[in-house]
Amino acid sequence: TINPQRLWDSLMETARIGGTAKGGICRLTLTDLDKGVRDWFRGQCEALGCTVTVDQVGNMFAFKPGKRSDVAPIAMGSHLDTQPTGGKFDGILGVLGGLEVMRTLHDLSYDTNAPLMLVNWTNEEGSRFAPAMLGSGVYAGVFDRAFADSREDRQGVRFADAIESIGYRGEAAPGSVKFGAMFELHIEQGPILEAEQKVVGVVTGVQGMRWYEVECTGREAHTGSTPMNLRANALLGAARVVERVNQIALEHAPSAVGTVGLVEVKPNSRNVIPGHVFFTVDFRHPDDAVLDVMERKLMEAIPAIAKEIGLEAVAKKVWDSPAVRFDAECVAAVRAGTEKAGFPTRDMVSGAGHDAAYIARVAPTTMIFVPCEGGLSHNEAESTTLEECSSGAQVLLNAVLEYDQR
Amino acid sequence: TINPQRLWDSLMETARIGGTAKGGICRLTLTDLDKGVRDWFRGQCEALGCTVTVDQVGNMFAFKPGKRSDVAPIAMGSHLDTQPTGGKFDGILGVLGGLEVMRTLHDLSYDTNAPLMLVNWTNEEGSRFAPAMLGSGVYAGVFDRAFADSREDRQGVRFADAIESIGYRGEAAPGSVKFGAMFELHIEQGPILEAEQKVVGVVTGVQGMRWYEVECTGREAHTGSTPMNLRANALLGAARVVERVNQIALEHAPSAVGTVGLVEVKPNSRNVIPGHVFFTVDFRHPDDAVLDVMERKLMEAIPAIAKEIGLEAVAKKVWDSPAVRFDAECVAAVRAGTEKAGFPTRDMVSGAGHDAAYIARVAPTTMIFVPCEGGLSHNEAESTTLEECSSGAQVLLNAVLEYDQR
Ligand SMILES: NC(=O)NCCC(=O)O
Ligand SMILES: NC(=O)NCCC(=O)O
Repeated sequence: TINPQRLWDSLMETARIGGTAKGGICRLTLTDLDKGVRDWFRGQCEALGCTVTVDQVGNMFAFKPGKRSDVAPIAMGSHLDTQPTGGKFDGILGVLGGLEVMRTLHDLSYDTNAPLMLVNWTNEEGSRFAPAMLGSGVYAGVFDRAFADSREDRQGVRFADAIESIGYRGEAAPGSVKFGAMFELHIEQGPILEAEQKVVGVVTGVQGMRWYEVECTGREAHTGSTPMNLRANALLGAARVVERVNQIALEHAPSAVGTVGLVEVKPNSRNVIPGHVFFTVDFRHPDDAVLDVMERKLMEAIPAIAKEIGLEAVAKKVWDSPAVRFDAECVAAVRAGTEKAGFPTRDMVSGAGHDAAYIARVAPTTMIFVPCEGGLSHNEAESTTLEECSSGAQVLLNAVLEYDQR
Repeated sequence: TINPQRLWDSLMETARIGGTAKGGICRLTLTDLDKGVRDWFRGQCEALGCTVTVDQVGNMFAFKPGKRSDVAPIAMGSHLDTQPTGGKFDGILGVLGGLEVMRTLHDLSYDTNAPLMLVNWTNEEGSRFAPAMLGSGVYAGVFDRAFADSREDRQGVRFADAIESIGYRGEAAPGSVKFGAMFELHIEQGPILEAEQKVVGVVTGVQGMRWYEVECTGREAHTGSTPMNLRANALLGAARVVERVNQIALEHAPSAVGTVGLVEVKPNSRNVIPGHVFFTVDFRHPDDAVLDVMERKLMEAIPAIAKEIGLEAVAKKVWDSPAVRFDAECVAAVRAGTEKAGFPTRDMVSGAGHDAAYIARVAPTTMIFVPCEGGLSHNEAESTTLEECSSGAQVLLNAVLEYDQR
């Protein structure tokens, strides 16, 4: 069995890298803080005798040999980057939970049949560089390396320059570091497990998700001397789209969600009618066909709103991650792992995107969820207990050993 | 008569200090660029033999003696700071038009009875430091120096530190540099003069204006895994207030205007439900009683909207500049000055705020408007012709001489 306190101590130790006053973490991908936690991670893996390989988009793979060298490794992993106001568990639990599994096996000198692999995927959050799950997406061939390199943050810094500047451009071609299956431990980031008092969620898939970027252009003018009927207020247009996005999600209740998360107003001055607003839309639903309908509604609403105000509006889809069903055998291994531990459990579909969603395209994959307080995530107050974390890591260990027996 | 080309050349020369690619100016108050234009202004005034005094909030007063030293100076002036996407004329025409008057009289060795004073007021725009008309407001005793010093820009830089850092903290106590009347030449910033093909607007007053700051606080959470009914989306609240501000203005058509100009969303990440939105509201109307009604509607709407979404909202009024009527004798001098020039004219009330609005509290004051293309201002495309600028400066000269005769 894994060592709960050791896992917790590692979580708290890394939480200091980018730790915020409110108890969260701000450790955006490919920043110096990300370099800090990557260096730490590499050191810990090497201390266990693992070899660490970095690929060209910064994904880190720690390799631990097994008894057999003729079978592909079983991978565990998630991400160490965070949101600007991120919590201490989102992603990190999956990496450090995997590290705890490695450490436990190392302490026992227990050799699995297959080699093990522990992965830290680059830019999972998608907050600094859109889209999310970029490193795992490149690994899985959803995006190519040039696409990743070309992504720019809102300050105009390119992914390519950011990765070079922290020295995490590895040599391995993305996808060349092979494994035979992947298990990703993660906090649920939603309210269901807590409400139903389940210890572990057996994740059978991930819902579909789409991101859009919208630019509304009107005309900057003086707020005091420009009559209402001569205005082209880009912010009024954006406000109407924010309302419409919310409505569209409600029209497909209860499973649909829709959010405008990022808004930039120009020139953003108290006495200037906004001439330009850039904002993003996030739509999700477990059924891609429903997402098609939601998208159609959005794409009808935007020009209609623009027209009524006299704006130009350009909307484009920048990300489309279809719904995913995880591998039955991997799911069975997780189920067996929870039974062995005697944990109350339920099947569920992930509302959030995860590296596992892309990895599922190229290898048998699944996920293990543990509850988080109030279902709250992408919030500095995100909270999961020592017991919850260690239950998840125990199931991860069990599932990996179960899968390894087959 | 004034020299149109010289006036235009000075406008174009200073437009290079902070000039933008789109032909506007970005010269926020108390920045290094503002220092640049201030240094230039001081040099030009001193070249005419004027003494330049700077007061403790950075207002600059250039003094030109008259035949009599026992009468108070007649002042001209406006401001040299701009919006982030400002034009080449807003404010600047009033200062450089006054400079052209000084230069014309200097060339002719014409001595007025009263001394003349040319003023550059600090932070008229209110874009970097709210509220607007801060320098003239301190001069007029509406605000005290400590209040001005305490103002912070959106990056948290204090007015006090900004003024020290460009070396424009003068020694004169605000209000101690006296004058007997002020004439402010300005572009209209609205569409009326152009539509009616008038050369000059005789400004009889300024409408009332109020600024508010609103903070909506909800709960940051994951856009994918947080069901719609468990959200507290601060941006949805802000969007509804943006819509309501627009409605309130329309309910008091045609004279009312209402605008949200500045919005800051936190954490501003595509996959985080916004937890915090800060935004500003600008309401204007020529009748303060109507502004009271608009304000009441706003203050009712904000808690109602917050309640329906589950947000906390704090709204406060940060500026209240009541409607102003200018001095009859100054207005008469402008009217006489336009008649002498033979320009078609109309009386009007200013929709924008101006330093003259505060100075009117402590000295006889008025303004002269010239048209600008399409009524467009607070926009890099703001445009006024050489002829329009020089007509305004000519009327300024005429009005000052007219007033000086009395
Ligand atoms: N798990 C997680 O928060 N991923 C970020 C990608 C997304 O779901 O928006
Ligand atoms: N004239 C001018 O644009 N002043 C700025 C103050 C305001 O009216 O908002």
